[in-house]
Amino acid sequence: MQIGMVGLGKMGYNLVLNLLDHKYEVVAHDVDLSQVSSIENEGAIPAYSLEELVSKLKKPRVIWLMVPAGEITEHVLSSLENMLDSGDIVIDGGNSNYKDTLTRAEKLAEKGISFVDVGTSGGVEGARNGVCMMAGGPKEVLTYLEPVFNDISVTDGYLASGKVGSGHFLKMIHNGIEYGMMQAIAEGFEILEKSPFDYNYEEVAKVWNNGSVIRSWLMELTENAFKKDPKLSEIRGVMNSSGEGKWTVETALDLQTAAPVIALSLMMRYRSQETDTFNGKVVAALRNEFGGHEVVKAKN
Amino acid sequence: MQIGMVGLGKMGYNLVLNLLDHKYEVVAHDVDLSQVSSIENEGAIPAYSLEELVSKLKKPRVIWLMVPAGEITEHVLSSLENMLDSGDIVIDGGNSNYKDTLTRAEKLAEKGISFVDVGTSGGVEGARNGVCMMAGGPKEVLTYLEPVFNDISVTDGYLASGKVGSGHFLKMIHNGIEYGMMQAIAEGFEILEKSPFDYNYEEVAKVWNNGSVIRSWLMELTENAFKKDPKLSEIRGVMNSSGEGKWTVETALDLQTAAPVIALSLMMRYRSQETDTFNGKVVAALRNEFGGHEVVKAKN
Amino acid sequence: MQIGMVGLGKMGYNLVLNLLDHKYEVVAHDVDLSQVSSIENEGAIPAYSLEELVSKLKKPRVIWLMVPAGEITEHVLSSLENMLDSGDIVIDGGNSNYKDTLTRAEKLAEKGISFVDVGTSGGVEGARNGVCMMAGGPKEVLTYLEPVFNDISVTDGYLASGKVGSGHFLKMIHNGIEYGMMQAIAEGFEILEKSPFDYNYEEVAKVWNNGSVIRSWLMELTENAFKKDPKLSEIRGVMNSSGEGKWTVETALDLQTAAPVIALSLMMRYRSQETDTFNGKVVAALRNEFGGHEVVKAKN
Amino acid sequence: MQIGMVGLGKMGYNLVLNLLDHKYEVVAHDVDLSQVSSIENEGAIPAYSLEELVSKLKKPRVIWLMVPAGEITEHVLSSLENMLDSGDIVIDGGNSNYKDTLTRAEKLAEKGISFVDVGTSGGVEGARNGVCMMAGGPKEVLTYLEPVFNDISVTDGYLASGKVGSGHFLKMIHNGIEYGMMQAIAEGFEILEKSPFDYNYEEVAKVWNNGSVIRSWLMELTENAFKKDPKLSEIRGVMNSSGEGKWTVETALDLQTAAPVIALSLMMRYRSQETDTFNGKVVAALRNEFGGHEVVKAKN
Repeated sequence: MQIGMVGLGKMGYNLVLNLLDHKYEVVAHDVDLSQVSSIENEGAIPAYSLEELVSKLKKPRVIWLMVPAGEITEHVLSSLENMLDSGDIVIDGGNSNYKDTLTRAEKLAEKGISFVDVGTSGGVEGARNGVCMMAGGPKEVLTYLEPVFNDISVTDGYLASGKVGSGHFLKMIHNGIEYGMMQAIAEGFEILEKSPFDYNYEEVAKVWNNGSVIRSWLMELTENAFKKDPKLSEIRGVMNSSGEGKWTVETALDLQTAAPVIALSLMMRYRSQETDTFNGKVVAALRNEFGGHEVVKAKN
Repeated sequence: MQIGMVGLGKMGYNLVLNLLDHKYEVVAHDVDLSQVSSIENEGAIPAYSLEELVSKLKKPRVIWLMVPAGEITEHVLSSLENMLDSGDIVIDGGNSNYKDTLTRAEKLAEKGISFVDVGTSGGVEGARNGVCMMAGGPKEVLTYLEPVFNDISVTDGYLASGKVGSGHFLKMIHNGIEYGMMQAIAEGFEILEKSPFDYNYEEVAKVWNNGSVIRSWLMELTENAFKKDPKLSEIRGVMNSSGEGKWTVETALDLQTAAPVIALSLMMRYRSQETDTFNGKVVAALRNEFGGHEVVKAKN
Repeated sequence: MQIGMVGLGKMGYNLVLNLLDHKYEVVAHDVDLSQVSSIENEGAIPAYSLEELVSKLKKPRVIWLMVPAGEITEHVLSSLENMLDSGDIVIDGGNSNYKDTLTRAEKLAEKGISFVDVGTSGGVEGARNGVCMMAGGPKEVLTYLEPVFNDISVTDGYLASGKVGSGHFLKMIHNGIEYGMMQAIAEGFEILEKSPFDYNYEEVAKVWNNGSVIRSWLMELTENAFKKDPKLSEIRGVMNSSGEGKWTVETALDLQTAAPVIALSLMMRYRSQETDTFNGKVVAALRNEFGGHEVVKAKN
Repeated sequence: MQIGMVGLGKMGYNLVLNLLDHKYEVVAHDVDLSQVSSIENEGAIPAYSLEELVSKLKKPRVIWLMVPAGEITEHVLSSLENMLDSGDIVIDGGNSNYKDTLTRAEKLAEKGISFVDVGTSGGVEGARNGVCMMAGGPKEVLTYLEPVFNDISVTDGYLASGKVGSGHFLKMIHNGIEYGMMQAIAEGFEILEKSPFDYNYEEVAKVWNNGSVIRSWLMELTENAFKKDPKLSEIRGVMNSSGEGKWTVETALDLQTAAPVIALSLMMRYRSQETDTFNGKVVAALRNEFGGHEVVKAKN
């Protein structure tokens, strides 16, 4: 099978290498043309424009997007819409919001173009050597693509999760769980750090990775991180986020579901991005008002 | 009735003035002897030692403690225990943990001394002009003391809440609710501060105090605070806490009760006391490990 | 001034009575025509259709909507849009989402129609006798309407809060704070209910309303509720919600703000609407898997 | 080395088998004498009383407790204290609170008895075939015992975590993290269950276990649980807890640390144990008071 890959960032580039390993013919495009040249050296067929990519693919075309979610995905899809033909297949492998996916699938369907949403997990390493994928889309299209997905996934690392949207939804929830797990691990280590004991955190993470109930890939990464920087003294505790955690909480609210752990994991990230809060000022001012409690003066 | 007041801090001093207004004879003591001289000028009988205070009171003595909870209360009670006689009454008007109160009541009861726990609310202003009090203790003792409590409280501001311990327990819960209410108000104003609108917070608090569902004394204090410092730019958002919020959460856990709002109100206070967190470092390091996400470097 | 009121539900009906008290001429309409007849008997001018209402108002018309937020408000506004003229004023006094308000204001502005958003608080009683209102809109329009708003509000119960949208935004935050305050109060009483003491909750709420830090209208309502049903044994603890709490949390997320107390207040409401949870089943199943802990069997 | 095992429940019994596999001589006791006979058949030396166990061990004795934390551990230790000699070693392998451990170590030290606290993870299966252990205690004692601990652990599954108390503290935090991870997973599946998609949860857990960021032993157990009961329809979502989660939260509070995810994981367990809440009744009653919102009547 021939595959067109749009987007040669960390994930897309490595997915192409992975596909090439499995003898797929890949036509690859990126707005950064140096990435196109670079992947050509690895054995892919270069496409210096979307038009070129489309023209180099045989029908029914299979075009895989690995571009940032949101505006860029929207833009690429709008462009593609007019270049493709009925029967072609578009795969969105990025972290798109599943609501956008539903809208896009409907729009493309009007032209007879099939849309498949793939949630991709496993990081850069996974993209290169064996990824975890959850795909939503029309049953027959998923069946058609299944060999490709199986080839580039780790064993049992591919799931046809249901109708269109279900792949991105599942990936969103995956990330929501990830937020909660990471915050749970982080809270544990913070209590250790403040405890009267003197733990070696790399050793702690290591022992927990061998036989304990909480052994996990995230704990292995924790072990790695502490191996490099035993007290994480070189970094600040600013926790950024990309969007899937927020969408998970919004979805929980839409479904009238209590998801306190995921919600708080996200909110503690927001809190970490501030050095002082208006919230804190209000409470401090109130304590001063009713009880004459001291406030900490701002330095000017 | 004659009353012995131990502790002439902000609360105790003003309670003495309040009692003197109502024609009680007050024997007053504090370890800060200048406070004793000062209150003598207001009409109280000075006692420069606990012994002197005890000796100047007629039996059955009524001794009211307004000293810091914890070690100091424990110390004063141990000293008093040996000076008092069966039939005497000790009132603990401080913010003692109700579990300590139960232990102390039992110990004093062995000597025939009655113990009454009073939760006191309303701040310094209330102590002076009309306080809110919740008292636990033996029924007949509360009946005996009721006229005093009624005199110095605002109308309907006194409650005989039940057996010993119930006063401090009720005050603890009062403070737990206070934590939650304050945090709710503070979260609201933080969202306003980040909103695309340009509110005058004093005006906002004022309109909410007139006819809205959330009108409250805390909102009036909010109005006052914004009147003095419209953006609270002179203070930092460090939220301290004294103990009752923590006890409320611990009690909730002991009673296997979900109290997420009170728990989070307390935890956000703890969070506000740190400028960076180990928790945050762990999450940031993990995001870097699996996704290559940027970390913020610590400044050295 | 002449005012056209659309929507004669609990809030709208009482606002009309309030306006009539202050000698305004009110043309009133509702889809429930019996409400129209009823308000006619109180002195309002009846309008049995929107068209009739519009035709009975002099230019520049002032039309006040007190209809449910969402589709109905949208529908009424669409209908009105084509009946009104440049210079007319539409007031939305309902609980609309401020984002919808911004869109609507822009659309009406294209026809020269001014849009004013009013957040209304104080309940039915307030609507009748003195309401709390926060209004956003063009400055000169708010100035023009100010006498009306002041007349029907309690003293200092009206605020011109800023540009269009700011009124609904402020009301949304008001409700968010309300969620937090209510949950804080409720958690406190739940701990009391499980405590080893035997409190009379009406008395507790009453003493807290007299001199304590947490005295508030909500605590007065708590007192009323316990007066009617001392243990609330006649009702179930199902906590519904209407939308403003959810919007507050969504807005907090949009603004990257930690608002844990408001978020948890909402989520505990969702939790209360279920008798069993899938969440709980998963945790119970996991505990059984790793530790052999007993599970509670479902009854079939 | 000769080891005395006290407590032949699920964990202790399997630890004995594990020790026997590694050619240790084990003297075993339990209050349930049938367990003693049973383990004798497996090759252990039976002890039908604590005294017999002590008398059958050569000095310096090594006695390992696998009994329930709290009163029973306290009772066994009190009994042993008078039977043992200076130089003997007691290992507490149960889930004791680290504060108790500190007190006990001090008391035993007065008699020259060494105390070692071991946090044990990995469930029954681990106890049998390879456990995860974190041990606190005097350095030389841990060095002496290290071969034993290494023999019965999985590779790298043993950590000498520091001074006495550090083993139980670390196990406590391990369980706190476990609470958070489990709740995160459970929230994710609850959102899936309410989603518009139709997932096969066993397949979902399986794909997440192959290549995803959240692959973990807990997710493997999730896969197992769904394999047995695809919708968990046979069990109720009642989440019990044993103590370590509560201690983690209490410790966080003692150390003034925000641990919202662990705290909420615990509180949602408490919530799951109730079918209705007083909290909910209060909020429902308040909504009725101010807005006339409907309440759900209790069935009598």
